[in-house]
Amino acid sequence: MKIKVIAFDADDTLWHNELYFQEVEKRFCELLEEYNPQHTISRELLQIEIQNLGLYGYGVKGFMLSMIEAAIQISNHQLPAQAIVKIIDFGKELLEKPIVLLDGVEDVLAALKPNYKLVVATKGDLLDQERKLEKSRLSHYFHHIEIMSEKKENDYRKLLKHLDIHPSEFLMIGNSLKSDILPVLNLGGVGIHLPYHVTWAHETIDVKIDHPNFKKAEKWNQVIDLIQKG
Amino acid sequence: MKIKVIAFDADDTLWHNELYFQEVEKRFCELLEEYNPQHTISRELLQIEIQNLGLYGYGVKGFMLSMIEAAIQISNHQLPAQAIVKIIDFGKELLEKPIVLLDGVEDVLAALKPNYKLVVATKGDLLDQERKLEKSRLSHYFHHIEIMSEKKENDYRKLLKHLDIHPSEFLMIGNSLKSDILPVLNLGGVGIHLPYHVTWAHETIDVKIDHPNFKKAEKWNQVIDLIQKG
Repeated sequence: MKIKVIAFDADDTLWHNELYFQEVEKRFCELLEEYNPQHTISRELLQIEIQNLGLYGYGVKGFMLSMIEAAIQISNHQLPAQAIVKIIDFGKELLEKPIVLLDGVEDVLAALKPNYKLVVATKGDLLDQERKLEKSRLSHYFHHIEIMSEKKENDYRKLLKHLDIHPSEFLMIGNSLKSDILPVLNLGGVGIHLPYHVTWAHETIDVKIDHPNFKKAEKWNQVIDLIQKG
Repeated sequence: MKIKVIAFDADDTLWHNELYFQEVEKRFCELLEEYNPQHTISRELLQIEIQNLGLYGYGVKGFMLSMIEAAIQISNHQLPAQAIVKIIDFGKELLEKPIVLLDGVEDVLAALKPNYKLVVATKGDLLDQERKLEKSRLSHYFHHIEIMSEKKENDYRKLLKHLDIHPSEFLMIGNSLKSDILPVLNLGGVGIHLPYHVTWAHETIDVKIDHPNFKKAEKWNQVIDLIQKG
């Protein structure tokens, strides 16, 4: 069957994102260095983030709340209020970061738009993701944005139902094998993996994918060829 | 024209919600009573919530972050870390509250489902609202849930476009005149106001609505009649 809808992950696929999170995490570790070495702080933060994921979901607000919780725990309840103010400021800065597109994104969207329905399919906080799409000035390429609380097989199944298409008519492009590619391949869709140079620890997986519908691009300018070769 | 889609607000329309927020706010004020009288604390919290609304959007996570920020400010940075832990716990409890339906909701949904497309149209955090709908056991009545970052005219315009209907084919039922009724009437849709006995200060408005498409129900069991009378 012919591809009808192409969905794009947003963070670290269309624009830079994880770098900013890692920058904040570095400042968070520095803020707490009197209590613990940085790698221990990073590990405890990740643990609390993952614990809270089921309750908070993805996005900056949950990250802020997990940083606050982790900081209090790491300091053994000795943290001064001033440090919490700093953590809240880190988060607010993150919410106000400018959007920097990955090289070549816009050429690809412009080339694909006449022949496919393009959508954004992303996790994260609703308002924050809408605002980032707005700031990216890419909105007009997309039919709409789907903000998903998870990106597992069942979430893609709902998305396909909502789009009213067969899995084989669906192509997903993203940087996360775990969230963007594997569930889509499992449903019978096509996945193009476009790795980003840093990945959040919770998104990393160690697999080698050998699947007829799996393709890998090093850069955005290879994507059109991969789609046209079918 | 005939109504095709009926949209329902969720919090304080389908199920109780604001009561739980007010309960938490009361405990928040008690936690800080050594610093300020309760009404001053409430006022400062509301002010910070509204300041942050543009950045955080609606929902429990933003409320938690605003409570933390307000508490630090109210205590003049003297707040012990233990109090922040309590605030985080208040928020987590709020996220895990059971869902209690308003009286008569389910009968109305069952009666309307054969003749209309029913959707939920709500503000709030994505994952939290999806989870509440799941817990309500009402999901099967709805075609889908629309989680909106705002409920202004332009947001309803997008919703109508997405639903592919004319405004006059759209009916919205909700407890907030400001968010559920006025913008819908302004676009040419029909609004049924179903007041709830408590309203968040930011949602209250002082207007008298006199509009041919405006209807008011005191209870859920009056809704069917109002719809059938057209």
